[in-house]
Amino acid sequence: MNQTPRTVRIALDAMGGDFAPANEVTGAVECLRQCGGRFHVVLVGDEPRIAAELAKHDTAGLPLSVVHAPAVIDMHDSPVVAIKTKPDSSMVKGMTMHKQGEVDAFVSAGNTGAVTAASTLILGRIPGVSRPTVAAIFPSESGPVLIVDAGAVSDCRPQFLYEFGVMGSIYSRSMLKKSTPRVGLLNIGEEDSKGNELAKESYKYIAERKGTLNFVGNIEGRDILKGKVDVVVCDGFVGNILLKFAESIPGYLKHQFRKFADRGLLNKLMIGALRGSLREIFRDMDYTEFGGVPLLGVNGVTIIGHGSSPPKAVKNMLFRAEETVQFRVNEHIRESLQGQR
Amino acid sequence: MNQTPRTVRIALDAMGGDFAPANEVTGAVECLRQCGGRFHVVLVGDEPRIAAELAKHDTAGLPLSVVHAPAVIDMHDSPVVAIKTKPDSSMVKGMTMHKQGEVDAFVSAGNTGAVTAASTLILGRIPGVSRPTVAAIFPSESGPVLIVDAGAVSDCRPQFLYEFGVMGSIYSRSMLKKSTPRVGLLNIGEEDSKGNELAKESYKYIAERKGTLNFVGNIEGRDILKGKVDVVVCDGFVGNILLKFAESIPGYLKHQFRKFADRGLLNKLMIGALRGSLREIFRDMDYTEFGGVPLLGVNGVTIIGHGSSPPKAVKNMLFRAEETVQFRVNEHIRESLQGQR
Repeated sequence: MNQTPRTVRIALDAMGGDFAPANEVTGAVECLRQCGGRFHVVLVGDEPRIAAELAKHDTAGLPLSVVHAPAVIDMHDSPVVAIKTKPDSSMVKGMTMHKQGEVDAFVSAGNTGAVTAASTLILGRIPGVSRPTVAAIFPSESGPVLIVDAGAVSDCRPQFLYEFGVMGSIYSRSMLKKSTPRVGLLNIGEEDSKGNELAKESYKYIAERKGTLNFVGNIEGRDILKGKVDVVVCDGFVGNILLKFAESIPGYLKHQFRKFADRGLLNKLMIGALRGSLREIFRDMDYTEFGGVPLLGVNGVTIIGHGSSPPKAVKNMLFRAEETVQFRVNEHIRESLQGQR
Repeated sequence: MNQTPRTVRIALDAMGGDFAPANEVTGAVECLRQCGGRFHVVLVGDEPRIAAELAKHDTAGLPLSVVHAPAVIDMHDSPVVAIKTKPDSSMVKGMTMHKQGEVDAFVSAGNTGAVTAASTLILGRIPGVSRPTVAAIFPSESGPVLIVDAGAVSDCRPQFLYEFGVMGSIYSRSMLKKSTPRVGLLNIGEEDSKGNELAKESYKYIAERKGTLNFVGNIEGRDILKGKVDVVVCDGFVGNILLKFAESIPGYLKHQFRKFADRGLLNKLMIGALRGSLREIFRDMDYTEFGGVPLLGVNGVTIIGHGSSPPKAVKNMLFRAEETVQFRVNEHIRESLQGQR
């Protein structure tokens, strides 16, 4: 993965999402129409079903190919078992192509646990990385904030959290253009004596290694949307709960606006007139804008999307994969964590 | 605390909040003006400062008294140490009055850790309760949802989480009028194999005691605002982070609306015209509406408020205290948890 090819080749798990392969195929076609020259997309999955979807689009001249992988790893599969027993699944096949250098990245809106496990088992970890981490993007008053870990590792040790902070900083610098990302440890108070056992130990562990990252100390739940830091470090249990909670806010607000509109014609007209503005105001809270989140720390580029990803999210996931390849995120991680243990 | 007196006597920590005693005095006066007959409020704190605030209001005929307590426990004090070394603080004095039956409840917008510690040490726990819990209210599409624990216990055992569920159910039934509150364990997936070690063990522990509460299984972060359950069980670390995150949403939205308004006169006029409606739409997300949260499981009634509580929040905290006394929440907890261990 050390080469930056002129045309980025990306394997897309065509069977990944809840609306696969329809949304995957549409998203890929849209992406290639927008900038076909920079990408080659390999749709990995059940060939007849992919072909049926492709037939709905004009794909003439698009740099697109299909690799047949009939099996599907779904939400109910145990990740590790599925990876070992379903070698002809789109996930294992796509990831293996990536391992063998046939593509530069792998993108999937499938079972997050399975994508994480497949990436870790098939691609392996970057030297110096104890556990790969899912880096999610939150909006804030001062721009995008990264949450590491957002679901890869439920039970953590202080060292994992430190490494999440290092990897998150690199991603924030490369992708979100923050020159010296401020890293905060998510806790329930600002004082270093605050928190559960993991938080207290992690504070010490990270503070001792302050030279290697811009650690600003503990932050609280209220500091995230304020944009007090650029990288929020927490275990994957807390991070995943927070991510899913945050993603549910637009739906709740929509419900509240609808309730208001239902209380009278004037209200309805007012909300109707505002629809476009509201969409603009809430845009930063819409995960489909960013598309997908990277799994940092594996020997390759894996982008994980929502199960319910619409074509727009799939398209944006492909862009995220391209950027992660181009900015050599993994090389920076390797350099930063080598010899850290 | 087994008697339900006709006039509820409430000790208010006049030195608790960030704007004490001004907001505390104003909130108490407003509350008493609204329904003086039902309350007697004892303002506990620095008498000269309280008197100076009271002089700003017309308090003639209001059932109000002052108890002098010059010391203050602030945000930087270690809770347990402060309680032992500051017997003449408003917190210790008010709580001791409650212990001795001079008042029926204690209300404070002070240091949450100190209020929790003072309640536990001075009032003691209800038999059968391992750890008292802070029960916070979240809005949802189907009405208020209770989060237990929202910050009292950072490191939990499965038994604590089960007891939080029992106490939360009782509070939800009594105060939020949910007849058979649905209890969910906050986790990162619905399957019982999901989660960190605590979540997995707690799932088993609670499922085995299903008869004593309406346990519907694991829920995810996205289910809270949807209103999928009435009581969300989690450890106080996760709960506190989530609570503070949720409380920061209105501020973030305000920022987004302001940014939109700043982009042009038309936008500004539109948002200006909508101000009242927006306030109505976002009202359920405003913590000052509910006022404060109870500490459940102690031998008494403790209501904890935000440090930044405005007078309206203080007023509503007093109402919450009254209801908690009237609905005999503690008796129900005692009956439910006795002999459960």
